[in-house]
Amino acid sequence: MADLLADPTLRVFAICAAILTLKLVFMVTLIGVLRNLRGGHLNPEDYRFRGRTPGPPDELVERVRRAHQNDVENIPVFLAVGLLFALSGGSPTVAWWVFVVFTASRLLHTVFYLAALQPWRSVIFAVGSVAPGVMPVLLIWRTIR
Amino acid sequence: MADLLADPTLRVFAICAAILTLKLVFMVTLIGVLRNLRGGHLNPEDYRFRGRTPGPPDELVERVRRAHQNDVENIPVFLAVGLLFALSGGSPTVAWWVFVVFTASRLLHTVFYLAALQPWRSVIFAVGSVAPGVMPVLLIWRTIR
Amino acid sequence: MADLLADPTLRVFAICAAILTLKLVFMVTLIGVLRNLRGGHLNPEDYRFRGRTPGPPDELVERVRRAHQNDVENIPVFLAVGLLFALSGGSPTVAWWVFVVFTASRLLHTVFYLAALQPWRSVIFAVGSVAPGVMPVLLIWRTIR
Repeated sequence: MADLLADPTLRVFAICAAILTLKLVFMVTLIGVLRNLRGGHLNPEDYRFRGRTPGPPDELVERVRRAHQNDVENIPVFLAVGLLFALSGGSPTVAWWVFVVFTASRLLHTVFYLAALQPWRSVIFAVGSVAPGVMPVLLIWRTIR
Repeated sequence: MADLLADPTLRVFAICAAILTLKLVFMVTLIGVLRNLRGGHLNPEDYRFRGRTPGPPDELVERVRRAHQNDVENIPVFLAVGLLFALSGGSPTVAWWVFVVFTASRLLHTVFYLAALQPWRSVIFAVGSVAPGVMPVLLIWRTIR
Repeated sequence: MADLLADPTLRVFAICAAILTLKLVFMVTLIGVLRNLRGGHLNPEDYRFRGRTPGPPDELVERVRRAHQNDVENIPVFLAVGLLFALSGGSPTVAWWVFVVFTASRLLHTVFYLAALQPWRSVIFAVGSVAPGVMPVLLIWRTIR
């Protein structure tokens, strides 16, 4: 099955999926580092282990966590449906745009979230919703035509 | 790879995956619209941008968000494992039932959640757990036999 | 497409994906059972249906929910990217290690979470982050080389 990545659509998808997965790992690591630096742990044993007194949630940790939560709600669906979409043929140009715009918009969404920039965060979120809106419609079209 | 959708199991999976993805996009859009209409934002800058005073969470927004959260916990796993399941052969009839029952049950789950209908929400949730329960067992069976 | 599971990498992935999916179903069921036994429901109608007075969140339910939430943030991404990774060729030995270590670390993570064992929960979480860190790098390498 090693020639799957010879397909141009699969190549773009693989790069985008890789970037988005590394982004998720980066965010999770960032949250872990921030919790260690600033507190805002989720469990009593986390406070005990670090010899700290339990405190209220930390504002910065909570903001990064909300940005990550938004990724968790959107990226895994894209990864699964995007693979199906890439495997199901269709125009490589359309796929390229769908994959690249989604990936770029998710990176920008986090930047705008952490910088608390509105309405840019909402605008880029809407841009990032084009991919999960367009792929299903094209999948249905390819299946029933 | 354009003939993947010639396979009857993949065709059913593609339609179900498309419906479930559109459902997620719809719910996210609904939450956004409701937050704009009723408040219940997550961030101070969201209130500032709309010139509102920060308030407590809105009950309707929170209910839609909980229904969506339940989707987030269940649909992406189905999309990924369902694709593997569809690609790994087996009876198209079994796949059809697994995919269609899951998809229908997720749609009904949201209806029952928004209408606050118990025990129907719990019953349909259990029905929707058949797919992620049966697919792994059949995958293991296909692999080791 | 029935010979996909003839590929050794796909076979290991299928087994790991099956175990992780069953784990998610188990955790969701456990949360449901605990809520029924101990309370800590999310909705007013859940309390009404069981004839209970709404109460504060239950500590044990919340702990299992947090462990499950951590799964939801990590397992679907692995299932989607792991399938792409398994389909894209490469060394079966590397794939075996990536898949098996991730799966084992997620099982142990839940054990350590429920037992409130630190720093072991953090250590095994880091081990479980190797797979979503390594797969994207290898995917990019396979695509651009």
